[in-house]
Amino acid sequence: MTSAPTNLRINGDRLAHRLDALAEIGAIDGTRGCARLALTDDDRAGRDLVVNWMRDLGLDIAVDGIGNVVATTPGHDGTAPVMTGSHIDTVRTGGRYDGNLGVLAGLEVIETIQEAGVTLPRPLAVAFFTDEEGARYSPDMLGSLVYVGGMGVEQAHAIVGIDGTTVGAELERIGYLGPAPLPAAAPHAFVELHVEQGPVLEAEQVTIGAVTGVQGISWTEVTVVGQSNHAGTTPMNLRRDPGLVAFRTAAFVRDLADEIGAPQVATVGRVELQPNLVNVVPANATFTIDLRHTDNDVLAAAEQRTMAFLARTAEAEGCTITSRSLARFDPVDFDPQVIDLVERAAIEAGLSVRRMPSGAGHDAQMLARVCPTGMVFVPSVNGISHNPAEHTDHADLEAGANVLMNVMVQLANAPAGDLR
Amino acid sequence: MTSAPTNLRINGDRLAHRLDALAEIGAIDGTRGCARLALTDDDRAGRDLVVNWMRDLGLDIAVDGIGNVVATTPGHDGTAPVMTGSHIDTVRTGGRYDGNLGVLAGLEVIETIQEAGVTLPRPLAVAFFTDEEGARYSPDMLGSLVYVGGMGVEQAHAIVGIDGTTVGAELERIGYLGPAPLPAAAPHAFVELHVEQGPVLEAEQVTIGAVTGVQGISWTEVTVVGQSNHAGTTPMNLRRDPGLVAFRTAAFVRDLADEIGAPQVATVGRVELQPNLVNVVPANATFTIDLRHTDNDVLAAAEQRTMAFLARTAEAEGCTITSRSLARFDPVDFDPQVIDLVERAAIEAGLSVRRMPSGAGHDAQMLARVCPTGMVFVPSVNGISHNPAEHTDHADLEAGANVLMNVMVQLANAPAGDLR
Repeated sequence: MTSAPTNLRINGDRLAHRLDALAEIGAIDGTRGCARLALTDDDRAGRDLVVNWMRDLGLDIAVDGIGNVVATTPGHDGTAPVMTGSHIDTVRTGGRYDGNLGVLAGLEVIETIQEAGVTLPRPLAVAFFTDEEGARYSPDMLGSLVYVGGMGVEQAHAIVGIDGTTVGAELERIGYLGPAPLPAAAPHAFVELHVEQGPVLEAEQVTIGAVTGVQGISWTEVTVVGQSNHAGTTPMNLRRDPGLVAFRTAAFVRDLADEIGAPQVATVGRVELQPNLVNVVPANATFTIDLRHTDNDVLAAAEQRTMAFLARTAEAEGCTITSRSLARFDPVDFDPQVIDLVERAAIEAGLSVRRMPSGAGHDAQMLARVCPTGMVFVPSVNGISHNPAEHTDHADLEAGANVLMNVMVQLANAPAGDLR
Repeated sequence: MTSAPTNLRINGDRLAHRLDALAEIGAIDGTRGCARLALTDDDRAGRDLVVNWMRDLGLDIAVDGIGNVVATTPGHDGTAPVMTGSHIDTVRTGGRYDGNLGVLAGLEVIETIQEAGVTLPRPLAVAFFTDEEGARYSPDMLGSLVYVGGMGVEQAHAIVGIDGTTVGAELERIGYLGPAPLPAAAPHAFVELHVEQGPVLEAEQVTIGAVTGVQGISWTEVTVVGQSNHAGTTPMNLRRDPGLVAFRTAAFVRDLADEIGAPQVATVGRVELQPNLVNVVPANATFTIDLRHTDNDVLAAAEQRTMAFLARTAEAEGCTITSRSLARFDPVDFDPQVIDLVERAAIEAGLSVRRMPSGAGHDAQMLARVCPTGMVFVPSVNGISHNPAEHTDHADLEAGANVLMNVMVQLANAPAGDLR
């Protein structure tokens, strides 16, 4: 049994080659982007390619009843692995790194360690989870949710997608309805490499994000009903303008986020007025409010203040409001030891690093329910993601994969019980 | 030569019968509304019906090169008539009173005076003007604009409509390309009866509006360009949110209108965000600003303050703005003597009356360029117009037509030169 030498480095060209090859499947013409919606033919082709690579490395491959694929280094019967992974499904206008990087970097880590002849006390595993994006089947992070027992497999199979298909039928159709048991046995630990999908690392010229957790998310859709009127003939004091209620509330949530300070974010990204004409006071306005914070109490207080402002503003305008929650997730905290390992691995490699929460959801937040978990972020150029223009520099991809390897090796060397 | 006796009253049932008969043409199924877009087959059928009524009264009928139809009491060679009128085209979801009331009340006034055997020093005329609504061909008030020489007839004929047709070809097709010269000779005076299309008269329980003029109108379309970003991963201080610029500006114009006070009105009735998703900071926002005031200096100052606020707000958010004027009309003042006549006629008839500006455009504002002009408003229930639910009570229709008659008779009795 040998600890991995600290001068071990992944093969950046081999990682890039795999990223390029996977990106050819479902490639969006004229761009560097991908469209591989979960459980489509393109997703199957992507899965087949990655599974072939897993086989080439001699890994034990398990496919479970929700189509998650886990490949484990052989010869460690019964020992819980140190797992990495992510997803290979994309949104309809996806980039080539979101998810794919975490899976292919996991393969690269395993291949590098194999080539170096290093053996570890624990197996390493790399997984890809089904339907992380939620672009075809809701909710997102479906595969990892079922993996950790957050949803029953029968319930998951019955989910109807945007095209009227069901998860169960499509899993069977593409040949990824597997026999591995669900919920799965907990890994020893889980660590996921992902592109940031935000602008913070690039803006601060930092290479590695040691992710501390995932922000809690609150999505609310509000419909305000007022009275449609002629914009020329209706004096201001006789108006009941639902658009104004939406506009004032949208400005309020920005001011509220500024007042609370980072990591509070608040966004009104969707507004629809009816009838939406230059010379008509709208009859109704529908808009969404997206609030996120890492502290659930702060998030709940922001929600409460927003809804109170909305109610006051609607009443003053003589409008009625209805609202419904589109999503509400509590914040997730990652494991302090794993966060430390990520931070130290970056420093040891001479890389700049900062601790930061994730503003987006990731499979890691599901695994955090069952084992010590962390994430490694690398910069996204201009913060762009879910877009064919998504890009991360080659050097940053390589740096992130090396940090991932270092963390996985240390987790695999840790005595049982040292984590949790 | 006899002055009309003050006890003369129009026949309200006959007026209602004509309104109902005209409303059957282009009737919107299941409603009391009408769809007779300018120069369509339904517009032709409506025109034919009204022209037949004009013929039945023995009026001299002139059709000009833009399809305006003017019917004049005969036997006054060369004397400028006291004219009334409006339009019979509607928007696609129109009511039965907007425009039609002014034309059919004009017919009713003439028939009442004929029945009473009253002769007047000047002829009376009733007109309907082409394409007042502008719903098929832009600009609105096209027929009256050309009538007073504000646009050449060749230019008007070349206008292409929303369906790709041209005004000239459609005029010829429906048989309303007439020989009467344009611009037309100025009438002695013009007075138009119209539904208010706003809530003021009803809210104040007043029957007659003595219209003092038409508000100046400023329509601006603004496009704000920022940076689309993930709503979860983008800290507030790194955002360039064009939606926020739109929202803050919309709230500003409301506050500005409240500060300036009536008759200032300000409306943001149209907003479009791209991509308009709950979890995406928009890439761009397009919205419209509708500002109206009766005083051009006040209106110009409101425009200036709005654009200054917009520029400041966009700069603070790191966004760029482009704006274009969709419409800009100076306020129109009606003739003080005609306004007085309307007010006194209402008082003499025992009707409540208030002076008020018009918030909407009307053919009368074009006629005001060439002769002493005024308008009579009657209440619109709930201020609703451009909607099949548009309604004015029968008693108010009748009251308005009686005031119109009184004013027309007094104008026809006035010595030449007494007006202007």
